[in-house]
Amino acid sequence: MTTQALVTQIREKRSFLCVGLDTDMNKIPEHLKAEEDPLFAFNKAIIDATHEYAVAYKPNIAFYEAHGIEGWKSLKKTIDYLNKHHPELFTIADAKRGDIGNTATMYANAFFKDLNFDSVTVAPYMGRDSVEPFLQFKNKHTILLALTSNPGAFDFQTGSDDGEELYKKVLRTSATYENASQLMYVVGATKAEYLKEIRTLVPDSFLLVPGVGAQGGSLEEVCKYGLNSQVGLLINSSRGIIYASSGEDFAEVAGNKAAELQEQMAKWL
Amino acid sequence: MTTQALVTQIREKRSFLCVGLDTDMNKIPEHLKAEEDPLFAFNKAIIDATHEYAVAYKPNIAFYEAHGIEGWKSLKKTIDYLNKHHPELFTIADAKRGDIGNTATMYANAFFKDLNFDSVTVAPYMGRDSVEPFLQFKNKHTILLALTSNPGAFDFQTGSDDGEELYKKVLRTSATYENASQLMYVVGATKAEYLKEIRTLVPDSFLLVPGVGAQGGSLEEVCKYGLNSQVGLLINSSRGIIYASSGEDFAEVAGNKAAELQEQMAKWL
Repeated sequence: MTTQALVTQIREKRSFLCVGLDTDMNKIPEHLKAEEDPLFAFNKAIIDATHEYAVAYKPNIAFYEAHGIEGWKSLKKTIDYLNKHHPELFTIADAKRGDIGNTATMYANAFFKDLNFDSVTVAPYMGRDSVEPFLQFKNKHTILLALTSNPGAFDFQTGSDDGEELYKKVLRTSATYENASQLMYVVGATKAEYLKEIRTLVPDSFLLVPGVGAQGGSLEEVCKYGLNSQVGLLINSSRGIIYASSGEDFAEVAGNKAAELQEQMAKWL
Repeated sequence: MTTQALVTQIREKRSFLCVGLDTDMNKIPEHLKAEEDPLFAFNKAIIDATHEYAVAYKPNIAFYEAHGIEGWKSLKKTIDYLNKHHPELFTIADAKRGDIGNTATMYANAFFKDLNFDSVTVAPYMGRDSVEPFLQFKNKHTILLALTSNPGAFDFQTGSDDGEELYKKVLRTSATYENASQLMYVVGATKAEYLKEIRTLVPDSFLLVPGVGAQGGSLEEVCKYGLNSQVGLLINSSRGIIYASSGEDFAEVAGNKAAELQEQMAKWL
């Protein structure tokens, strides 16, 4: 998917909501556990109930991988369902992969070709030759970790290298990578005050922002500092939507929660 | 597996060789492609031919993931074969995962429980709460990326934070994590001169060293600076062993290459 198609969808739906599919067998409603594939049954119901209000879906790959081959099958069914029934949606494999050269190409093949996601999250620690192989894929996007929303982010990301914090160095350096226009960045909402400065470094890039809601980030602050002329934001909510109810009405309640967020977002567009 | 069991095996075999199973459908011998599961058939033959000379095996997860569900099946067969027929071998999932809290636990479940690897490689970018969930698993080891062997390593890893390079900060900071005694570190052989200083920061830890041979690192230099009283080294070779011949004799030639490396290593023990 081109960035332009994503922006068009955002303007049409008046939403920049990404729904995180952190689908956990221990948290899905009891009645789904009798299904042949409970993870997929849950995802399908969530997608059906929320797709009018969301522009992107982000399966958290760990939650599928933890179930081995069966989990991988649920993941494949989920992305196939998205691509078949809602090809307008932007899909993100939240995989946080990071390896070099030929190995990076293998990961890119896994997510861009085998599974046909529009984008994948990637860790920057190994540098240029761990990121550029992903950027070789046309109309696919690489979402690089910059400043994450967890406490451990302060271990290394905010350490300063000759006066420049590591996450800023990641933003600045990665902008020189080949096909850097296909880069997006993960920036945690719990650090919204950092967004102003981040926008000076990457004014045009899309930012994927986790941590609004359950993790304490404020939608208002993120919009205030993060929006650009092409919107430039995808705000993710996982638990706040998909586990808003644990009863048989889980999908309906998820739809309501997504609609609430969409309404708040519309005010900023 | 306990660290002590690994050290015992190293002393018995007089080897600290790790064989990297970067098994690529485009590089395995033609005659194997008619097999039902060519990746597993290749791995099984390599393991059978080399296990006397090696103490560890390291499947590169990307190479399996690129084939989706089928690749995941080949990976599972490979680790099951290792655990069943050679339980004394130390197994490494070279996955370079890195995510936080509950998600990290999911990845740990995938590799430590579902697949039953002894260890997994992890990226440090997200800090403490992305590493400690892996360290909760008893007798399992977390191999943290410190200084990698690729050119991109200089993008961020060697940048200095108030005079301390990032990879050193990773070594020093991670030593304070809960259950840090279960940590090992990836240190590239192409930067062997760094090993002397690394040993002052993590004198007791095992180092997994890729990049000897094909990538230009010297076994001699790595041993000179990297060995400690408990050996403390696992030196990986992938292409130099598994693709030494592309003919029907590939396993035999791989065995010879592994034996050569074992002989060179024995001199240092």
